[in-house]
Amino acid sequence: MGSVADTPGTAAHPLDPLSANDIQATAALIKSKYADGAVHFKSISIVEPPKKILLPYLAAERAGGSVLPHLPRKTQAVWFLRGSSDFFCALVNLDTSQVEQLTSLGKTGYPNFDEEEVAELRRIVPEHPQVKEALKKLELPEGTEVVCNTWSYGCENDLETKRMVQCYLYCRDPRRTTNASNAYDFPLPIAPVFENETYRLVEIIYLPTGADARVNKDPKFVHHKAKEFHHSLREEPVRTDLKPLSIIQPQGASFAVDGHLIKWQKWRFRLSFNFREGMVIHDVTFDGRELFHRISLSEMAVPYADPRRPFHRKSVFDLGDVGAGTMANNLQLGCDCLGLIKYFSFLVSNAKGEAVPKLNAVCMHEIDNGIGYKHTNDRSGLVSIIRARVLVLQSILTVGNYDYIFAFHFDQAAGIHYEIKATGIVATQLIDRGVRVPWGTTVNEGVLASHHQHVFSLRIDPNLDGSHNTVVFEDVEAMPVEDELNPFGVGFAVKKTKVTSSGHLDFQPNRTFKITNQKSINPVSGEPVAYAITSPMKQMLLAHPDSQHARRARFATHPYWVTRHREGEYFAAGNWTNQSIALPVDQATEDGTGDVAAWANRKDSVDQEDIVLWHSISLTHTVRVEDYPIMPCETMQVSLKPSGFFGENPLMDVPQSSQLSGGSKLYEDHACRRDT
Amino acid sequence: MGSVADTPGTAAHPLDPLSANDIQATAALIKSKYADGAVHFKSISIVEPPKKILLPYLAAERAGGSVLPHLPRKTQAVWFLRGSSDFFCALVNLDTSQVEQLTSLGKTGYPNFDEEEVAELRRIVPEHPQVKEALKKLELPEGTEVVCNTWSYGCENDLETKRMVQCYLYCRDPRRTTNASNAYDFPLPIAPVFENETYRLVEIIYLPTGADARVNKDPKFVHHKAKEFHHSLREEPVRTDLKPLSIIQPQGASFAVDGHLIKWQKWRFRLSFNFREGMVIHDVTFDGRELFHRISLSEMAVPYADPRRPFHRKSVFDLGDVGAGTMANNLQLGCDCLGLIKYFSFLVSNAKGEAVPKLNAVCMHEIDNGIGYKHTNDRSGLVSIIRARVLVLQSILTVGNYDYIFAFHFDQAAGIHYEIKATGIVATQLIDRGVRVPWGTTVNEGVLASHHQHVFSLRIDPNLDGSHNTVVFEDVEAMPVEDELNPFGVGFAVKKTKVTSSGHLDFQPNRTFKITNQKSINPVSGEPVAYAITSPMKQMLLAHPDSQHARRARFATHPYWVTRHREGEYFAAGNWTNQSIALPVDQATEDGTGDVAAWANRKDSVDQEDIVLWHSISLTHTVRVEDYPIMPCETMQVSLKPSGFFGENPLMDVPQSSQLSGGSKLYEDHACRRDT
Repeated sequence: MGSVADTPGTAAHPLDPLSANDIQATAALIKSKYADGAVHFKSISIVEPPKKILLPYLAAERAGGSVLPHLPRKTQAVWFLRGSSDFFCALVNLDTSQVEQLTSLGKTGYPNFDEEEVAELRRIVPEHPQVKEALKKLELPEGTEVVCNTWSYGCENDLETKRMVQCYLYCRDPRRTTNASNAYDFPLPIAPVFENETYRLVEIIYLPTGADARVNKDPKFVHHKAKEFHHSLREEPVRTDLKPLSIIQPQGASFAVDGHLIKWQKWRFRLSFNFREGMVIHDVTFDGRELFHRISLSEMAVPYADPRRPFHRKSVFDLGDVGAGTMANNLQLGCDCLGLIKYFSFLVSNAKGEAVPKLNAVCMHEIDNGIGYKHTNDRSGLVSIIRARVLVLQSILTVGNYDYIFAFHFDQAAGIHYEIKATGIVATQLIDRGVRVPWGTTVNEGVLASHHQHVFSLRIDPNLDGSHNTVVFEDVEAMPVEDELNPFGVGFAVKKTKVTSSGHLDFQPNRTFKITNQKSINPVSGEPVAYAITSPMKQMLLAHPDSQHARRARFATHPYWVTRHREGEYFAAGNWTNQSIALPVDQATEDGTGDVAAWANRKDSVDQEDIVLWHSISLTHTVRVEDYPIMPCETMQVSLKPSGFFGENPLMDVPQSSQLSGGSKLYEDHACRRDT
Repeated sequence: MGSVADTPGTAAHPLDPLSANDIQATAALIKSKYADGAVHFKSISIVEPPKKILLPYLAAERAGGSVLPHLPRKTQAVWFLRGSSDFFCALVNLDTSQVEQLTSLGKTGYPNFDEEEVAELRRIVPEHPQVKEALKKLELPEGTEVVCNTWSYGCENDLETKRMVQCYLYCRDPRRTTNASNAYDFPLPIAPVFENETYRLVEIIYLPTGADARVNKDPKFVHHKAKEFHHSLREEPVRTDLKPLSIIQPQGASFAVDGHLIKWQKWRFRLSFNFREGMVIHDVTFDGRELFHRISLSEMAVPYADPRRPFHRKSVFDLGDVGAGTMANNLQLGCDCLGLIKYFSFLVSNAKGEAVPKLNAVCMHEIDNGIGYKHTNDRSGLVSIIRARVLVLQSILTVGNYDYIFAFHFDQAAGIHYEIKATGIVATQLIDRGVRVPWGTTVNEGVLASHHQHVFSLRIDPNLDGSHNTVVFEDVEAMPVEDELNPFGVGFAVKKTKVTSSGHLDFQPNRTFKITNQKSINPVSGEPVAYAITSPMKQMLLAHPDSQHARRARFATHPYWVTRHREGEYFAAGNWTNQSIALPVDQATEDGTGDVAAWANRKDSVDQEDIVLWHSISLTHTVRVEDYPIMPCETMQVSLKPSGFFGENPLMDVPQSSQLSGGSKLYEDHACRRDT
């Protein structure tokens, strides 16, 4: 943690992640205003300097300015008073040790769950007398361990403002006694609901387990042969024919790291990290040219397909309800990456306001990505070829059953690719033997995995040759057949449409979205410089537009949103997603209760303005039998690629590939050359 | 070439590629019927045994049968008589040395160009007196080398049956004298058209170079600063900060090769190769279960956007007009692949009927593909993780300016991914200074790269648990809101539609296409076993449906086609694509003149039949300035993944990843563990 400053207000850089002292000083200031032990912290996080002072600072820094101004170090603390649902949010100035702003949160959404709360619920719920009574009636074998999973309580209507938690219960294979066993393989038919602040039981719901909404109020446990995922519990031998494959970088890594400033292959950018977004990329330039001010994962919504009560509440916002930084794995050397690995560690806060290390939460390494370009001159026989090297910054999250692998891939041709891999264990529920339902797949005897969607929001704050940018979409269209220009009917052409007013944009198969700078003209093409964002056309949110899922995750209903930048607008589904109640888009856009749909609804001018592009990346996961007991990675990628930004292919100065550098060997020498 | 039999009729395996003797014997038999030197061969290729005898053979072979029946070795020869356009096609039985069938080809399409023909045209055209005269009027600097590129003569109407070739001329930078220089950077404003069999000049077309169809009949050469791609001609220094990255496999490769039979990680399949399709994958099983009978690239259409004469003729079928095997690169160790590489070499024929080696035309190696799955148990802290290993079979083609990298990726989870990378040099033409057009991008002063499409046809002959399969498409749809089952409006469900009659299928964002075996039920899910084919939803052919481009490349107008298998139906745009004239779909489906649209139009039953699935993979390439002077790889991937075919995740017996095996190192040791 060497590069994080140790005293408040003296961070090495205004975007540096929180230090232990930053966290402790913030917590101390808040706690000093209450009785001992009264405060339960939800989060302490950095408040980045506003762009109007940050942009000049970054420009001066890049220009090599030796005397940079001091920017005030500020944090945000969110807490409630134990035993209540009274939430507060404070803006803290660490330079002055002052609370600059104190807000009492409303009841239209709550902050994230935290580890203390979840651990307490996991402990309390199975031990609650009424839950124990209900479990006993299931007739579980003696000694069976019951496991409680807590889920956000997605509201059924706008009146459910009391803070609640829904619990889904599982048990471990009664014939096993190890904590490695797959509890998700034994879903139980009851789901207790608890009040969150009082840990009071509200009700025990008996779950529908057939093909319709009917419920058996006297279900009994039925055993089946378990599907285990942990290797220690697998019965078959492991494959023995996989030989080692090693990545060796004998001369070291090609990147340079100074604190959280990273340079690699003409790239220069800054890494930060917070409990909610996890890793964030700032101030991205390539070959000295400004590209992006800030890129981060903004939110993720995961609504499930099962229409029946209480599964209709299963729609989680993993960033707002928990936090990508909070859930980041400690990435172990060799298991998560190959090659020469640089790890970054960070700090988050706990409920007591203490600093908690997130060790090795981000890893950075290079990978070979195959051929970068190739051309064989068919007259001379001369070959031009380079290998493609990619710089990867990766973070892996575990959200209960699911695991997500997020990575920024920087390529040598000035492209940034945001890669998402979904893996881990699909959420399971009980299903009666022999029953099949169209909203899920039976993955083991009595085990149903409901279909679901993952919709991620990638927030892109562009800075293409400066902060005044314009989104343009380009449609490739057949030209009209006409005698003069297109008599043969084969012509097609690009039609460009500038986005002038904030709002949402939709996919078309023939459409490309671009971020442009209309004032910066590419001297080769004569067109404004641009970066294209490419992403496969996918099904967006399926829930009915009037449903709670759709109203709370409006960002997931369209693939692109364009807003004019305002400070504090970071999270696509709003600041407080937990049990959020959606307000109409024309309300509450000024006080921190809005979402991207509300901000876009301001109809701000976004032509040659400081804009933000939000991309909703959708994965509709109709579960396969092969996704169980553990799911092979399902990969998605969004690319930001120059499209008329540079004067030619940025790869032209990459050294040619040669067999000397790659360590390649022949499998059989006699197959390489033919003697006849 | 050790595994290729040396005597006709004694191939080690009926699917083994042609031996030198196979080619020579075929050629000798044909030549014996004509005067010396009369025959100009277009191709000699293997005729695979019909499925009705091949399938039992392969089944018996897989079952370990020691005495396998002998299957007749047959070839196809295609030729014309020099100086004429009289084409013939013969089916040759090498066992009996008999021509079993002789066909005189019609005038509705011609076979491929061949190397002799192209070399002759490249030599003759710039030396033709009238061409020289026209070149002289351009006032090229003294000594400028003119380069001729030949293009298939896409028909303007159904009456153009004479065999022609259109030539686009370029010159090398007059200030350079090296054959490494980029001739595509100096397109000339004239395009001669020649008759193909007589090499007679038909006309010299002056090309439109403005924003409309008007033509300057007295253009003059204007010099500009060249954009070179060959590293010897680049002016800037190469990047020096890229450190070596080596792939080391100290214990050898994980695959086993026996002739053209390949085994790796439960996969077993056979590789073959022919001049037209290049590499072909046969008889694919995983863990002993039949998956696919045959997978190959069937065709590729590349229509250009420029609507003006004569560019309206630029629509090439790279497989039918030239041949993927013919154009395959000699893959050099280390440049094209890293790691432990197995190369396969093959033979094709030349115009004289001689065997010509295609050395190292296919390479095979393993790659690490990141994390295969991961789950962290958030109670126990136990981590389950594997790295994903992939087996790659790769072939690279050079088609004049363009280069294509094709690869089959076999993963450990029973998935096959067909990867296409487009690279090389975009086709260029002259544009007046300062002019911009919506059908192309100015990539250098006076150099226009026209937009274009690449539509590839992947032919998939499935064999899921046997040869009687059914295509099903699954639409994920919102459930109707109704009080009983979906009162909250959040439900969604899968709707399955069986494809019962041959025809085409279209994309929808919520749609997945699957190949199923309706008689083989997955015991876990209770559903028919299936493989899903996933591919991003793309814009299909843009040309007007009545245009020659659309009529000749009907396969490119829809992403999926399903036909019932018939022998000899391999090529999506038909057998003879060169200057093809499209017949109505209800004609000519029996005599070798049809295309996939005609075959699909038979409305055959395709439910639980021996079916073929054809997937048209489309890339609409609106050229970027960054695609020049050489184009960074543009990558597409189609995946065939089990979807309820197996009983669980096929990765469960892959050994867990550990840092011991990967050769990983820490970039900074102190960043890994935090002591405070």
